[in-house]
Amino acid sequence: MMKQVLIGILCGAVILTVGILIGNYGIVKSSSSAPSWVKDVVKDVDESFIEKFLSEVDNIQIQENLRELTKVPHMATTAGDEQTVQYMLKRWQDPKTGLDEAWREEYMVYLSFPDPKKPNKVTVVSPSETVLHTVREKEKSYTPDQDDPEVVQPYAAYSPAGNVMGKLVYANQGKLSDYQELNKTLDLSGTIAITKYGGAGRADKAINAAPFGVVGVLVYTDPLDINDGLMSDINETYPHSWYLPPSGVERGSFNTHYGDLLTPYLAAKEKTYRIPVKDITGIPPIPIQPIGFEDAFILICELGGKAAPKTWQGGFNCTYNFGGPGFRSTSDFNAGNDVKLDIFNYGEVKNSSNVMGIIRGSVEPDRYVIYGNHRDSWVHGAIDPSSGTSVMLELTRVLGQMVKQGKWRPRRSMIFGSWGAEEFGLIGSAEYTEQYFTKLSERTIAYINVDIAVFANATLRASGMPSVQNVIFKATKQVKAPGSVSSSVYDNWLKYSNRTSQEHGVIPKMGYLTGAGSDYAAFVHYLGITSIDMSYTYDRSKTNARIYPAYHTAYDTFDYASKFIDPGFTSHQAVARTAGNILIRLADSLVLPFICSDYSEVLKAYLNIALHLYKTQLQARNISMEPLERAVESFTSAASHLDQVIQSSDLANETPLKVRRINDQLMLLDRAFLNPLAFPDKYAFRHVIWASSSAGKLTFPGLADAFVKAESSGQSSDWDKVHYHLSVLSQAIEGAANTLVDVI
Amino acid sequence: MMKQVLIGILCGAVILTVGILIGNYGIVKSSSSAPSWVKDVVKDVDESFIEKFLSEVDNIQIQENLRELTKVPHMATTAGDEQTVQYMLKRWQDPKTGLDEAWREEYMVYLSFPDPKKPNKVTVVSPSETVLHTVREKEKSYTPDQDDPEVVQPYAAYSPAGNVMGKLVYANQGKLSDYQELNKTLDLSGTIAITKYGGAGRADKAINAAPFGVVGVLVYTDPLDINDGLMSDINETYPHSWYLPPSGVERGSFNTHYGDLLTPYLAAKEKTYRIPVKDITGIPPIPIQPIGFEDAFILICELGGKAAPKTWQGGFNCTYNFGGPGFRSTSDFNAGNDVKLDIFNYGEVKNSSNVMGIIRGSVEPDRYVIYGNHRDSWVHGAIDPSSGTSVMLELTRVLGQMVKQGKWRPRRSMIFGSWGAEEFGLIGSAEYTEQYFTKLSERTIAYINVDIAVFANATLRASGMPSVQNVIFKATKQVKAPGSVSSSVYDNWLKYSNRTSQEHGVIPKMGYLTGAGSDYAAFVHYLGITSIDMSYTYDRSKTNARIYPAYHTAYDTFDYASKFIDPGFTSHQAVARTAGNILIRLADSLVLPFICSDYSEVLKAYLNIALHLYKTQLQARNISMEPLERAVESFTSAASHLDQVIQSSDLANETPLKVRRINDQLMLLDRAFLNPLAFPDKYAFRHVIWASSSAGKLTFPGLADAFVKAESSGQSSDWDKVHYHLSVLSQAIEGAANTLVDVI
Repeated sequence: MMKQVLIGILCGAVILTVGILIGNYGIVKSSSSAPSWVKDVVKDVDESFIEKFLSEVDNIQIQENLRELTKVPHMATTAGDEQTVQYMLKRWQDPKTGLDEAWREEYMVYLSFPDPKKPNKVTVVSPSETVLHTVREKEKSYTPDQDDPEVVQPYAAYSPAGNVMGKLVYANQGKLSDYQELNKTLDLSGTIAITKYGGAGRADKAINAAPFGVVGVLVYTDPLDINDGLMSDINETYPHSWYLPPSGVERGSFNTHYGDLLTPYLAAKEKTYRIPVKDITGIPPIPIQPIGFEDAFILICELGGKAAPKTWQGGFNCTYNFGGPGFRSTSDFNAGNDVKLDIFNYGEVKNSSNVMGIIRGSVEPDRYVIYGNHRDSWVHGAIDPSSGTSVMLELTRVLGQMVKQGKWRPRRSMIFGSWGAEEFGLIGSAEYTEQYFTKLSERTIAYINVDIAVFANATLRASGMPSVQNVIFKATKQVKAPGSVSSSVYDNWLKYSNRTSQEHGVIPKMGYLTGAGSDYAAFVHYLGITSIDMSYTYDRSKTNARIYPAYHTAYDTFDYASKFIDPGFTSHQAVARTAGNILIRLADSLVLPFICSDYSEVLKAYLNIALHLYKTQLQARNISMEPLERAVESFTSAASHLDQVIQSSDLANETPLKVRRINDQLMLLDRAFLNPLAFPDKYAFRHVIWASSSAGKLTFPGLADAFVKAESSGQSSDWDKVHYHLSVLSQAIEGAANTLVDVI
Repeated sequence: MMKQVLIGILCGAVILTVGILIGNYGIVKSSSSAPSWVKDVVKDVDESFIEKFLSEVDNIQIQENLRELTKVPHMATTAGDEQTVQYMLKRWQDPKTGLDEAWREEYMVYLSFPDPKKPNKVTVVSPSETVLHTVREKEKSYTPDQDDPEVVQPYAAYSPAGNVMGKLVYANQGKLSDYQELNKTLDLSGTIAITKYGGAGRADKAINAAPFGVVGVLVYTDPLDINDGLMSDINETYPHSWYLPPSGVERGSFNTHYGDLLTPYLAAKEKTYRIPVKDITGIPPIPIQPIGFEDAFILICELGGKAAPKTWQGGFNCTYNFGGPGFRSTSDFNAGNDVKLDIFNYGEVKNSSNVMGIIRGSVEPDRYVIYGNHRDSWVHGAIDPSSGTSVMLELTRVLGQMVKQGKWRPRRSMIFGSWGAEEFGLIGSAEYTEQYFTKLSERTIAYINVDIAVFANATLRASGMPSVQNVIFKATKQVKAPGSVSSSVYDNWLKYSNRTSQEHGVIPKMGYLTGAGSDYAAFVHYLGITSIDMSYTYDRSKTNARIYPAYHTAYDTFDYASKFIDPGFTSHQAVARTAGNILIRLADSLVLPFICSDYSEVLKAYLNIALHLYKTQLQARNISMEPLERAVESFTSAASHLDQVIQSSDLANETPLKVRRINDQLMLLDRAFLNPLAFPDKYAFRHVIWASSSAGKLTFPGLADAFVKAESSGQSSDWDKVHYHLSVLSQAIEGAANTLVDVI
């Protein structure tokens, strides 16, 4: 009986178990089983994937990318440029390590070149036009790279052609104030001005000069500004060090606006309307030509006239005089001789290509993280831009391989852009944003720009909207500093450049994207897309060079980069790891890693400075800053509310539409700061917080500039413009706050 | 034993069942059970809810709404206006039938009023200024409504004050061509022109006149244009019929731009920058005053000079002469006498309110369907705008009740707007779009405008972007035509107004929102939001009235509306049902009911007309229309592709993010057509397809206007503008196509 009972119980238990199993697995719960997509939509960034990515980013691969990219000079639209187009396509279309798709997009853009058959000439001539001195036309060769026939003669792109001569004057940096200073004691009409790089935009050195009657301008790089004073190529400059050889010349685009100059706000397609060339604004009205300091030395040290002010002096071992105008009577050239510019630049509409590549997003393909850099250089462009391109190619190799192997696909789409014709004014990226304006505005999470990846190998430098600070910090903490086994890129950065934040304590100091220095410009200022620009850079205790010395010269070669900028390519690797980490986080995070309160912190700081600088004077004119104060308050409270919502929600268990809603609020935040009427005088600047400003104050740019103008003119119409801009600004900030509060 | 076995089997069965039950219900399948939100996010529109809604919309409720809204005159910012603000708030905050929330938003806007202490005067005076005739200052009273002291004197808002006199001329409709015609034979300088309503915008009648030296303008409504020729108040006009009594005067806003005139592109808040009043553009430069046809008859029939052309003649039983200038020598007034205008209008910045209300969306609260109408009238405004407001209040009563009872909540949010100061230039809605620009751009699915709900009770009239045609058709097929038991609003509409579509065969003819006739303007032209405007309207075989005759007069009262416009309020009911049906479908449909191909159909038609009209001449000037052709092709193929994707997807079983992605493409389509540079001379017009045009061609407005200008001036800079606009237009259409193709 006992046995039977036991058997019965046993049987019962078995049957119960079978029943439970049938009940659990045998019955399809059609009404409540989760659709297959549920798991995908709530997936967050995979930290182990990031680990894997970081470990696979390889310095030697970057080095080899650079070697390939710098084989020949590849100025925009030349045969060398086409070679890099083909190389990018080959890499991005590689079946094992390429992207989902890659293609080229062409624009017909207005460029400016020197004439190889009639090289630009700068000479010192006697009254009878006997040539007393000829400025070097080509940079001196130290390695075979400089002998490539495709090395373009140093020139000022968009300088008009022309033959001008006159007595030489020294005009410091060619700022308006520099010419005003000269004009106090000298009649500048008919003169040629020699200026230093720095202080004013390239084109401005000529634009500022023309109204004073100056007929031509020279520009050179002073050894004090670029070489920490060193000048000798016997043992001091490249190939002995990173310093610029005496004959090195910085080329550049001499224009003030960005994008194709003939098709403002329109993508430069074949049949697009083009403005007449004569209507182009923002370019030099008089010929201008860059020269090396070897020749600048000869010209400046022979100048007559009074000694220039102390702040105008440079690295030459002579006193920089204003010029008589012209040379000293005791000079080799003597006082009667002129400097003559024979400039043969010509403009041409040419076909420039962007190379585009994508990795499709799995869950939100309609959300884009864009990563880009330009491809065109002035000469071989090892640092500018090929260091960045080498980094980009290493990122896409690692990510592409994962995709091809089916191991990973980002939540959101990644778009990679290898922009054309940046050196001529950010043309490829600007045309791209014009062509795809609406689509990009609606869908782009962020733009990451890595142009020059490594200026020097000391520390990270990162700029961007304040809301990205957090994700940059997160990424930099995970990447080892080059050559270090314990210290992170973050630790190192903190050591070199930091600030105290009320919210976060002592943190690395991020920069802002207020100018148009690289291809982020159209994304930030025209589209209002949250952007990041980064690189490795200098130890400022070791050099005062305004930029790495071979910048835009024939010496910016693989040899230079690998010997003097980043031997071993470990700084390149650190940048690739950091930028890639950020890219993956932006693409894969369930909730976008943007912190709105970090934006408020900057707006509050801007407001405090504005109140301090302007409030009293504005009050006296019956202009209230209260709407701006209220707007910043609204923004601050809305931003902290949204951050709170994000932190307090269990978003992995929420409807994906709630997550998307929050992400849309974060993605579109910067769009709210756009107003096409905010800067009527600035081409394609529409972001009221980050536009460039000449006032030099750490506050709202339009307000600062309008205030300076009104204060100097004293006209009531100019004070009205201050009031107007204050209203535009307040409305934009209130509008941004409105997008951050509860959606309804 | 048998019994034991049986008991054993039974026990076993019971245990098995218990096991199955435990297995099925007792174990939480954490890994695969569907989250609770899955059902919500895939929910589509509920047809039985629409049935219920339709059955609950009540004509008597609408009638009572109208009675309440028309108790007193409620011109913008008057005490009567405030009374309607309070009433709207009371209704929308009602705990049983109100919305989730309702509030007021105030703007300080520039309005223009006559001076009650110094009424505007129009007189005929002798050379010694003896008054020979005085134009009636107030409309004649037929019901107590007209005796209300708050009835504003007829006037032209934004006409300058001034005292002017001169010989009278008859200038037809005050078009530029009318003044040019007069100017051929008459010296207009120092004259007063009398004009008819129609043909040109109100302000234009004075703006066109001033350059010819005209010093003042009168405007009246000709009985031929409004009363089908009838004139007598003894038995022909109101209160005997819907026709305008002889003393009736159409008031109106005499301005060309919309929105507050002192704060262009800025929300008119207290401390917002205001332009100086003298800088306002688009308003009459000379005094203008509207009068009744009773007085116009007296003035026109006494005019001397040559007979005006046949097309200028009107409903009076006399020949309309040009004027000598001035009266006939044989007239009662005689040739030496002048017409004198003493206008005392003044401008004032006043507080105007929008009343806003919302029903929060359950699934996508960050998507808005906005429904609105203005609240302010000129006098009692029974038809304009209270017919529309009565309809809106009935919608919100039915929907609000469902929400309060917990029976329904829309998928997306509904926003209701009762706009202020529309009559002065769509001010409340325009300021709203300026204040919330970014938020509304990013999130608004559609705007539905029902201003005058019933002009007449014959047939539906609906205008909007072509993509909404389908949902309008769907809704109208479900609503019975007023007074019919079998025929639908759709059937009835098809009978009155139809066209043949290549795609759909014979269908009702929808209109386009190309002008700025009501509050949809800022949504369509400034924000690029897909919009709908609808009403019930005339049987054109029965009347040629340019609008319902009591429009903007003191006769637009509850008595008039209920006796002559819609006795029984069944047309109001049909409009409420139709608009409400559309509103619910836009808010509740899983996939937005927009058909992109219907947009292509219109673009193709526009293109064909453009090619026909312009191609040859443009080709001769080396301007290619090919980019436009290609753009329309791209759009067509992208649109049909997206429609295909929608039709072929089982979206109820797809990830909600895929549905959202498609809905975003549909929602944002019209935004892609915006370009702030497209119409530099037209305030707040940015939609390249629907902007107003003076060329009168059914094609792209900017292209048509630019072509007319270039053809007439022949200047190459004007042909350049044609080319430029062609590029802007092509880029916008290509940009729109880019948003419709696969997202990546």
